[in-house]
Amino acid sequence: MTVSFVYILGMAGTAAFAVSGALAASRKNMDIFGFVVLALMPAIGGGTVRDLVIGRTPVFWIDDNRYVAVAIIAALIVFFSSYKPGSRRRILIWMDAMGLALFAALGTEISLTHGTGPLVAVMLGVTTAVTGGMIRDIICNEIPLVLSSEIYATAAFAASVAYVVADKLGTPAQIALAIAVIAGFAVRALGIIYNWSLPSFGTKR
Amino acid sequence: MTVSFVYILGMAGTAAFAVSGALAASRKNMDIFGFVVLALMPAIGGGTVRDLVIGRTPVFWIDDNRYVAVAIIAALIVFFSSYKPGSRRRILIWMDAMGLALFAALGTEISLTHGTGPLVAVMLGVTTAVTGGMIRDIICNEIPLVLSSEIYATAAFAASVAYVVADKLGTPAQIALAIAVIAGFAVRALGIIYNWSLPSFGTKR
Amino acid sequence: MTVSFVYILGMAGTAAFAVSGALAASRKNMDIFGFVVLALMPAIGGGTVRDLVIGRTPVFWIDDNRYVAVAIIAALIVFFSSYKPGSRRRILIWMDAMGLALFAALGTEISLTHGTGPLVAVMLGVTTAVTGGMIRDIICNEIPLVLSSEIYATAAFAASVAYVVADKLGTPAQIALAIAVIAGFAVRALGIIYNWSLPSFGTKR
Repeated sequence: MTVSFVYILGMAGTAAFAVSGALAASRKNMDIFGFVVLALMPAIGGGTVRDLVIGRTPVFWIDDNRYVAVAIIAALIVFFSSYKPGSRRRILIWMDAMGLALFAALGTEISLTHGTGPLVAVMLGVTTAVTGGMIRDIICNEIPLVLSSEIYATAAFAASVAYVVADKLGTPAQIALAIAVIAGFAVRALGIIYNWSLPSFGTKR
Repeated sequence: MTVSFVYILGMAGTAAFAVSGALAASRKNMDIFGFVVLALMPAIGGGTVRDLVIGRTPVFWIDDNRYVAVAIIAALIVFFSSYKPGSRRRILIWMDAMGLALFAALGTEISLTHGTGPLVAVMLGVTTAVTGGMIRDIICNEIPLVLSSEIYATAAFAASVAYVVADKLGTPAQIALAIAVIAGFAVRALGIIYNWSLPSFGTKR
Repeated sequence: MTVSFVYILGMAGTAAFAVSGALAASRKNMDIFGFVVLALMPAIGGGTVRDLVIGRTPVFWIDDNRYVAVAIIAALIVFFSSYKPGSRRRILIWMDAMGLALFAALGTEISLTHGTGPLVAVMLGVTTAVTGGMIRDIICNEIPLVLSSEIYATAAFAASVAYVVADKLGTPAQIALAIAVIAGFAVRALGIIYNWSLPSFGTKR
């Protein structure tokens, strides 16, 4: 039961990040295989790094090809859809926000289940969430969203910490996951809508 | 017998990608250790990612240092050779094409041998083929070849699918590998020569 | 005893690279979580790649969260400190040099202890040393230091070879480590101070 809820969240995050990658490909006028490659990077990149560092190999998408299939289908849907050029960046950012919140929560849950301490669990949650998008942006030669002044890593951090705290308080995993996803998405959404940001090094003085 | 044919193809791909990396280093006027680092990245990068995700550790070049040796020798040969500046990009692209076809075929074969399904095998073949060159281009701050409008990921995909189909039809591994390499190289060569490309998102409308 | 000396060197390298990453974040005017992310990349990135390729998973920082803690503390100290803008790049380069020498020596020692041959040990030493900083620079969209004309990979190579040679001559591990760190740092320092560089491809003719 918990497993299947986790599974659904994982698939939703995979699809959201795949759409963000495919939209990045569309902004670079790539061909259909470029769409697939760029959709797969954020969709499975972060979870791959997480599985590798905790030694959970073969990684999650090797034995269950539905992750790869979902990402490819999402890429094809974007390829055959039409978007006004101006709206693509906007949709990309919101899809990325959904993937970010989902993967931060899931990465933290998987890490704790695997027996790591809370500090490493938070770090792995953030890593799962930000790595894929970072690879996508680096390949596209764009400034990674994680580096932008808007709140980004902070949102992943909020989701991860929310999960760890909920878990310590004995909250069932499904509810803890829901709380974490909502917390992460809310923080990121506020960042996007109000162009909200934490004080940065430059604005301090 | 099959093993040794696979081994020779692997060494050929390693050398071809190492030359492409060293040529990229020469275009940046790097010193000799820069050549070695940039030759090693594409030469062993893709296979390293493949081995990591399927859990085949230590990765292929740890216990057999001939891969590293071949890449270093290729880097040194390029360093001590002379090229007309204009021709370097051209040779780089052709060497990259050879490595691409060889590594796509080999990556697919290794993946199937390791017991993955055909979808994941194709994905790992493409990953093995494109990752190394992508890292090389990102370090050099160039637009990755995989993002260019020319057919690139498509060629790796053609090689991988050719191998999977030949394998399903019961073709012996050596012949399947040869077919896959030729298919992948032919598609990429057409892309380079005729500046051939698939319809992209931008040209669709 | 040897273990604890190795441990202290590892922590020193972690802190030095974390400071270099945090300084890179300060040059991009990032917020506090950006500092933490960019400090962690070079601090644990190189060792993570080393552990992954030799199959030493879970990687070093999963079961001992002091590495992550040290990097985070270093990031916070930099965040709450003040620097004249002009001096930041300078401090970054010297911190990077310390991390480079420490990680090259340690990476080689860990690799030899793990049973690899000397060629692979040197390669893993260099990889441990240069990977983290390369990731930091790529994320920041700067030309990686390893690509600059100054001696960089060469210094890591000097440290690794010094360790292998000292080890073959039967030098105790602690002394071999000290020699390797000093050799690597000296070569890099000469490169920084005198803007020393090896003959490059472009200057050959």
